[in-house]
Amino acid sequence: MSTYSIILSQDKFVHKDSLHFPYEERALQFGDGVYEVIRVYNGEPYLFESHVDRLYRSLAAIKIDLKIEKETLSSLLKELIERNNVEEDCFIYLQVSRGSGTRIHHFPTDMEPNLYAYIQKQPRNIDNVTNGVRTIIVEDIRWKNCYIKSLNLLPNVLAKQAAAEKGCYEAIQHIDGVVTECASSNVYLVKNGKVYTHPATNRILNGCVRMAVKEFCEKLDIPFIEEAFTLDDIHEADEMFLTSSNSEVSPIIEVDGKMIQDGKPGPVSTLLQETYEKDANISVKLA
Amino acid sequence: MSTYSIILSQDKFVHKDSLHFPYEERALQFGDGVYEVIRVYNGEPYLFESHVDRLYRSLAAIKIDLKIEKETLSSLLKELIERNNVEEDCFIYLQVSRGSGTRIHHFPTDMEPNLYAYIQKQPRNIDNVTNGVRTIIVEDIRWKNCYIKSLNLLPNVLAKQAAAEKGCYEAIQHIDGVVTECASSNVYLVKNGKVYTHPATNRILNGCVRMAVKEFCEKLDIPFIEEAFTLDDIHEADEMFLTSSNSEVSPIIEVDGKMIQDGKPGPVSTLLQETYEKDANISVKLA
Repeated sequence: MSTYSIILSQDKFVHKDSLHFPYEERALQFGDGVYEVIRVYNGEPYLFESHVDRLYRSLAAIKIDLKIEKETLSSLLKELIERNNVEEDCFIYLQVSRGSGTRIHHFPTDMEPNLYAYIQKQPRNIDNVTNGVRTIIVEDIRWKNCYIKSLNLLPNVLAKQAAAEKGCYEAIQHIDGVVTECASSNVYLVKNGKVYTHPATNRILNGCVRMAVKEFCEKLDIPFIEEAFTLDDIHEADEMFLTSSNSEVSPIIEVDGKMIQDGKPGPVSTLLQETYEKDANISVKLA
Repeated sequence: MSTYSIILSQDKFVHKDSLHFPYEERALQFGDGVYEVIRVYNGEPYLFESHVDRLYRSLAAIKIDLKIEKETLSSLLKELIERNNVEEDCFIYLQVSRGSGTRIHHFPTDMEPNLYAYIQKQPRNIDNVTNGVRTIIVEDIRWKNCYIKSLNLLPNVLAKQAAAEKGCYEAIQHIDGVVTECASSNVYLVKNGKVYTHPATNRILNGCVRMAVKEFCEKLDIPFIEEAFTLDDIHEADEMFLTSSNSEVSPIIEVDGKMIQDGKPGPVSTLLQETYEKDANISVKLA
């Protein structure tokens, strides 16, 4: 997977080879920043406002004062897509750190935030959304403010690696048996036609696809119940699925080596993925 | 405060202006790495083996396979000091990330760890160790594996900033009233001649100065009790102090606006700081 050659650095467009960071950069030394990953289909960013809005909420939560206004940033990101003549499926990666300068813990007063954004080629994972994914269960050891999309992703990395080592796609995290979310996606349980997922508290990142799926459910008259489910509930699930900008709506067919029902994507998961594809104006998959 | 000009990058010495990182670097995007801060007095690194040992423990904990052996790294760090003709008080900052490459959560198989180390001028904070420091109390919202000295420092940054905004030096963190440690130092309470501090579980970073202070106490026949104390205990404290490579043994004279006893450094804190200075071969302060 490669990166398109033109990159946004602050409010300027530069060649990707010219963008690098000094060793005294707060993202590098503290993870002191926030980010977004925005799906681009057919040259159009999907759930765009939702992502940009969340970026500014994350920035406010950790008190980074980005001098670039929301509307300006939105225009710059759209220009980034245009300048790269993007045609393939891809995503925008965007991050903002507090800035570069001498390493001290508290906020330095003499630095400006560092923003950069690039576009990465990324084919849709048709197999995952069609046939489903396997998962493992891990303890949720993260900090208490997961609603902030911060660069402090080490626990997520370790959870995702644990999944990968077992040939799985994702790790379902729990606190004392209560399921929060996966390492880089939200997770849902379907029982008797109702969709259950952890409420959007500080314990999870409220995914932009999660917010979209909530709307899909409302339109489809599927009860969307923001109540956490437990590890025990998983044994009784009719279906499970996960969502993220990269995963779209991927059915979960296996948890810790045990199949969900018959190990095939269920009707609610499939319907929601079809709804996702219609909403994103992308071709409905060949089932 | 400035950085000496010669920097260690992997196992090579380079000029500081030539060291920079690509935008697809895992420390920058995930905080996927670990670090150490080593005090250097009179050109000699203090508690050197203790720091280097801990670095390799942290690396092992997050499964970074640094190809540079411990003995080689130790030699390189000493050479870094020599090459810079270090005379002033300073510290070595050293970090290792999993490497640079396309952003995916789980460990990429095609990258080598990135190591760099530099020396930063840093005068001793004589006022803090002599007259003590003021602190605030904050909730400990960090992840559950604080024994790893990782680059995921955003909660520490936010806690330290909260302290700075109240004119304080440090933030004392607690979980449900149980005191863990400060944002970038360990914390201790003295009662009836005994020193209490949180045990070295996964909830705190076992500071190299903490380990040294434990030895000092044993030599001085001061009971060193690794039992967590509570916020309530603070009201009854005879003394409090904190330790870190940067703070040495700094008495705490105030917590959330309330003085500890008469708001002056107590005899145990002062004795431990004097012992620190003797052990580090640095001039004893003018009291």
